[in-house]
Amino acid sequence: MKTPLHSSFVLGYLGAGQLARMSAVQAFRFGIQVAVCSNRKEQEPVGLMTPHSFQCSFEDLDQLVQFARKCDLITLENEFLDSEILRQMVERSGTPLYPSAKSFAKIENKWIEKRSFEEAGIPVTPYALVRSESDLTGFGDKHSWPFLLKSSKGGYDGYGNIVVRNLAEAKKAYQKLGGEKGRDILAEAFVNFTHELAVQVARNETGTVVYPCCETIQEDQICVAVQAPAPVDPVIRKKAQELAVAATETIDGKGLFAFEFFLTNDGRLLLNESAPRPHNSGHYTIEACITSQFENHVRAVLGLPLGSSKMRKPAAVMINLLGTHNRPANVEGATAMMQQKDSHLHIYGKLESRVGRKMGHYTLLGESVDELYPKAKKLAQPIQI
Amino acid sequence: MKTPLHSSFVLGYLGAGQLARMSAVQAFRFGIQVAVCSNRKEQEPVGLMTPHSFQCSFEDLDQLVQFARKCDLITLENEFLDSEILRQMVERSGTPLYPSAKSFAKIENKWIEKRSFEEAGIPVTPYALVRSESDLTGFGDKHSWPFLLKSSKGGYDGYGNIVVRNLAEAKKAYQKLGGEKGRDILAEAFVNFTHELAVQVARNETGTVVYPCCETIQEDQICVAVQAPAPVDPVIRKKAQELAVAATETIDGKGLFAFEFFLTNDGRLLLNESAPRPHNSGHYTIEACITSQFENHVRAVLGLPLGSSKMRKPAAVMINLLGTHNRPANVEGATAMMQQKDSHLHIYGKLESRVGRKMGHYTLLGESVDELYPKAKKLAQPIQI
Repeated sequence: MKTPLHSSFVLGYLGAGQLARMSAVQAFRFGIQVAVCSNRKEQEPVGLMTPHSFQCSFEDLDQLVQFARKCDLITLENEFLDSEILRQMVERSGTPLYPSAKSFAKIENKWIEKRSFEEAGIPVTPYALVRSESDLTGFGDKHSWPFLLKSSKGGYDGYGNIVVRNLAEAKKAYQKLGGEKGRDILAEAFVNFTHELAVQVARNETGTVVYPCCETIQEDQICVAVQAPAPVDPVIRKKAQELAVAATETIDGKGLFAFEFFLTNDGRLLLNESAPRPHNSGHYTIEACITSQFENHVRAVLGLPLGSSKMRKPAAVMINLLGTHNRPANVEGATAMMQQKDSHLHIYGKLESRVGRKMGHYTLLGESVDELYPKAKKLAQPIQI
Repeated sequence: MKTPLHSSFVLGYLGAGQLARMSAVQAFRFGIQVAVCSNRKEQEPVGLMTPHSFQCSFEDLDQLVQFARKCDLITLENEFLDSEILRQMVERSGTPLYPSAKSFAKIENKWIEKRSFEEAGIPVTPYALVRSESDLTGFGDKHSWPFLLKSSKGGYDGYGNIVVRNLAEAKKAYQKLGGEKGRDILAEAFVNFTHELAVQVARNETGTVVYPCCETIQEDQICVAVQAPAPVDPVIRKKAQELAVAATETIDGKGLFAFEFFLTNDGRLLLNESAPRPHNSGHYTIEACITSQFENHVRAVLGLPLGSSKMRKPAAVMINLLGTHNRPANVEGATAMMQQKDSHLHIYGKLESRVGRKMGHYTLLGESVDELYPKAKKLAQPIQI
């Protein structure tokens, strides 16, 4: 019987960025092969890690089917995909996809996602689908201005999100996001929160593993750092883990899923975003946990037993290394960081750096996040990419 | 300035087996590219991990120079190379090689290796170069029969080693090893030992890092398991680490080096073998140490600061997974092993399994080797490859 641990087994990734890269390393570690399909013309990080490299639009079903036929199993690293195209790709190629098109369909559209989770009893940020001027006014009057308008598909790191303070801004944003072209536009209330929390969950037919609840720290809507465990009441952390597991079950997920929560001023947890893949909030798990989110991603989609998510040390801090220059990627100033004990550098192999682009990260392990966070920030300071 | 952490930097490996594979993963993690030159016609593990894959004889200088010109730096994963060819490859291509041809020249020939270390005050097993019948008789009479005959270049895991019990066997072995064709043949006395120990050392211009002293367990001259730390007197472990560092300094090594010792019945340490590369005895460091031998291999040859070799847990046991069938590589029976907490499976991606071939390994971490070793052996038992 050909098991998933067969050396001719090919795991295909839709998407070829750093998430696929860090996951592919775990596929290699299990002795299997990696194929990658990128929807971008430029050389992508994983393309430099395999002789099986494809490029096509994620809307080109024929090409996707061709790619899928070369693989034994497909997984994905981003949400810029259409569940119906994925369903047809699986049907025509006969190659399984995990997370499945059915799971993906429940979260690909932010409106359907929120409704799915709400129906399962998971608290979400107040939202509404808006289709008219009166919807916009109605939402603002009910939940107070300003609020957020989001296109219901394709946004990340704040792209595709617009803050609107009044009706004029709301109408302009609605148009900019494509509402008049028939796109589903979601209104979302601002939530006053004390912390943004995140939890990753690995799940397949062999079981479910939930990672510690961590805190994500954002600047200009981009995640700049993660602290694990989150410096909040352990009861809150446990509740976030329970909600994340419930959310994974709601979509019958097989794979690795990430969930982001707001911890509101009045102590409630609201599910904010979900992702059907390894996530920036879980990069710290590479060194901090017995089994990383990437290893459990591979284990989960292959149907293998899942590994422990227990932390090896009491605390971890992860710092994103964002591009400091527009130039070929070249890391300078990392000496102090590399000399620091239990400090772990990862560079993503993107050929071109751009200011603010996620180029790498590093993780520092130790006894408490209070002690680690200032140290980690200081070590990151001299790094130029 | 182009640093080694430049995304267009290409690290070339001479040799494409599991050692290069596990090292290449660490090169990827630093965002650089990997090229590989194999001297074998069959598809090799690292060939499936990069689009930059070459094949040529390691005696074909022109081809080696062509390969080297495509790389920013070359390293190696085996000893089946000739230091003079490496020297000319560097000279003609302008591409640096670490460990250097000069370091390599001091250990490529077992006779020169033993003499170099002996001159540096490092105790080695009794040896002599043999060229005649009287040399063979003389060695046996002085050190007692049986003893070992070895070809001075190219042996590993017992290949190229022959035990001889009398002059007739010695003459036959001498001929078989190529002595009459002008090959240097080494006689080596049998040593009565209680343990075989190993130590890895990373060294470059930024410093030296020495790994814990571990025990290697052999069956039929093949390493089947490693225990770390070695279950011997800590004074002995420390002495082995000191000798390993001294040996690395003797050859002015830049890279990752591994040394194997006999701990004799009367408590002496004798250096038995050295390798200018990551080594099977150090696979346990991937999970057991803060920085693995493979990460420090990459850091060392790139001239980056070296990482800590401290163990994360008090004990580790590594079990080699040898081929159980002659068939396409396919791992069965690994479920219990994968379910075990802090148990880490690695499969090497070799397309064909053969009985006894090194196909993968796994490492179990815990509190003591006494507790781990029987557990690890039991978990390995059902595995079929």
